Amino acid sequence: MTALWRRHPVGIVGLGLIGGSLGLDLQAAGGVVKALVHREATAERARSRGLATEVSTDPAVLRGCGLVVLALPLDRLLEPWPELVAALPPEAVITDVGSVKQPVLAQWEGLVGGRFVAGHPMAGTARSGVEAGEPGLFLGRPWVATPSGATDPAALEGVRQLAGAVGARWLTCAVAEHDRAVALISHLPVLVGAALLQAADRGSREPLGQGAAPADSPAAEDLATLVRALASSGYADTTRVGGGNPELGTLMARSNREAVLEALGFYREAFTALEALVEQGEWGALRNDLEECQRLRPDFL
Amino acid sequence: MTALWRRHPVGIVGLGLIGGSLGLDLQAAGGVVKALVHREATAERARSRGLATEVSTDPAVLRGCGLVVLALPLDRLLEPWPELVAALPPEAVITDVGSVKQPVLAQWEGLVGGRFVAGHPMAGTARSGVEAGEPGLFLGRPWVATPSGATDPAALEGVRQLAGAVGARWLTCAVAEHDRAVALISHLPVLVGAALLQAADRGSREPLGQGAAPADSPAAEDLATLVRALASSGYADTTRVGGGNPELGTLMARSNREAVLEALGFYREAFTALEALVEQGEWGALRNDLEECQRLRPDFL
Repeated sequence: MTALWRRHPVGIVGLGLIGGSLGLDLQAAGGVVKALVHREATAERARSRGLATEVSTDPAVLRGCGLVVLALPLDRLLEPWPELVAALPPEAVITDVGSVKQPVLAQWEGLVGGRFVAGHPMAGTARSGVEAGEPGLFLGRPWVATPSGATDPAALEGVRQLAGAVGARWLTCAVAEHDRAVALISHLPVLVGAALLQAADRGSREPLGQGAAPADSPAAEDLATLVRALASSGYADTTRVGGGNPELGTLMARSNREAVLEALGFYREAFTALEALVEQGEWGALRNDLEECQRLRPDFL
Repeated sequence: MTALWRRHPVGIVGLGLIGGSLGLDLQAAGGVVKALVHREATAERARSRGLATEVSTDPAVLRGCGLVVLALPLDRLLEPWPELVAALPPEAVITDVGSVKQPVLAQWEGLVGGRFVAGHPMAGTARSGVEAGEPGLFLGRPWVATPSGATDPAALEGVRQLAGAVGARWLTCAVAEHDRAVALISHLPVLVGAALLQAADRGSREPLGQGAAPADSPAAEDLATLVRALASSGYADTTRVGGGNPELGTLMARSNREAVLEALGFYREAFTALEALVEQGEWGALRNDLEECQRLRPDFL
């Protein structure tokens, strides 16, 4: 049977990085794309970039769509505006692209039932907004769905075919598995990197202990300057996501709080054990742990 | 007065990344470089790469040098072989390139007194060994010296001119300041990244709680596979140094134990405070902290 996205127009709500890229790829694959955006200026720019077949700020644009992709930021997925919900075609499959799945699934299954498919295409670049969409963004990238017991299998299949049409790698898992996974590999690194920045800042302002008088050379650097001057690419890499978008970091922690707390617990355990090895001078055991880490990392690349 | 490195040959002990690069740049600047290496195969390769004016495995090659750079790994700086110490010209300025300074300073001031200058050129690439040396490695990079009360000012000046000859940015500070700085920005990130790898590994093998049954779809991924499949460039960056050379990570922690423990303490404090904000749902305060981190990071780049 012909895929849902070929039989009917596909609605895309939001034309940022994910929505815009999806619109480009679906049209290139022969689909008809109807996009809803919030502001007229965005609509005009999206039209001139050709991000969708039709772009409007009127929710009625979604009429006739067989599948609607909610390509909205997480906070707007969790508090959707009523006009949008009202405008969704009553039979259409609805899916989203949010990076945390449990609260989105609860919210949208409540609104539209089993025709909602919670999804998460893992394709990011640093860019966002109507200029960000690009062809081929999803090629070979994971597109995760977290079906529940209530999810309509035909709806799930419709989204699977959509993901396949843009070259994504389809994965399914339980919603709690997804949310733990993103807590461990995406939300925890933000807090870990943030703490590293704060530690270097605090540590560079704390006076040195007794017997560690600063150099009395007039050219000697103060500690705060020194710490910053000596930071190399390793420090820059380790803190990249920790020094990233604060709004986004907060939203992730907030909407995935339970899984993030659990991930913080796993992390604290590992960190405390490493600290104890240094404290006790267990150098052989420390090297074993670091060797394990060296072996572990390639699987995460 | 003519710089020491111009008046007499410069000795370099070890022709790895730092020693080899220094040899290339000093010769290009008009200096005469006499290099001592451990193995004849290394000497041959170093000769054919032109890393020094003269390369030998015989410590006598250092005769007549006015300044000797110990471009050796930290463990060999801390336990120098006696033939090397005996072969150092009795009036020469001796300096090193080790990444931890307190134990090196203690060891070498004991051996040669105030003509030892503890130094640390911060110029690294991932490469090492006789093939690694490259021209221009030090250009614009920090070269830190940590003079003590016993350091001969003329010796310090001789090393400063050497660093200047290869385009490095000269900095001086107290030895305790240097060791705290590298603990915060270089050694701590190793342990932080290592704990993140262990946390993701452990967390991906720990069963989910009650009420979080895995998806029953036959295609559903197991959690360990999922966590690895979803890891993105942010995770890769945050764990790069944590998944690096275990030997080196252990050596850093071991030779800079006090400062690393102190840095772990600064980190634990920051991490615990962030964890408490998530635990208590203090989202405004968490955003403030992440905003501070976003402001802090550019100074470390």
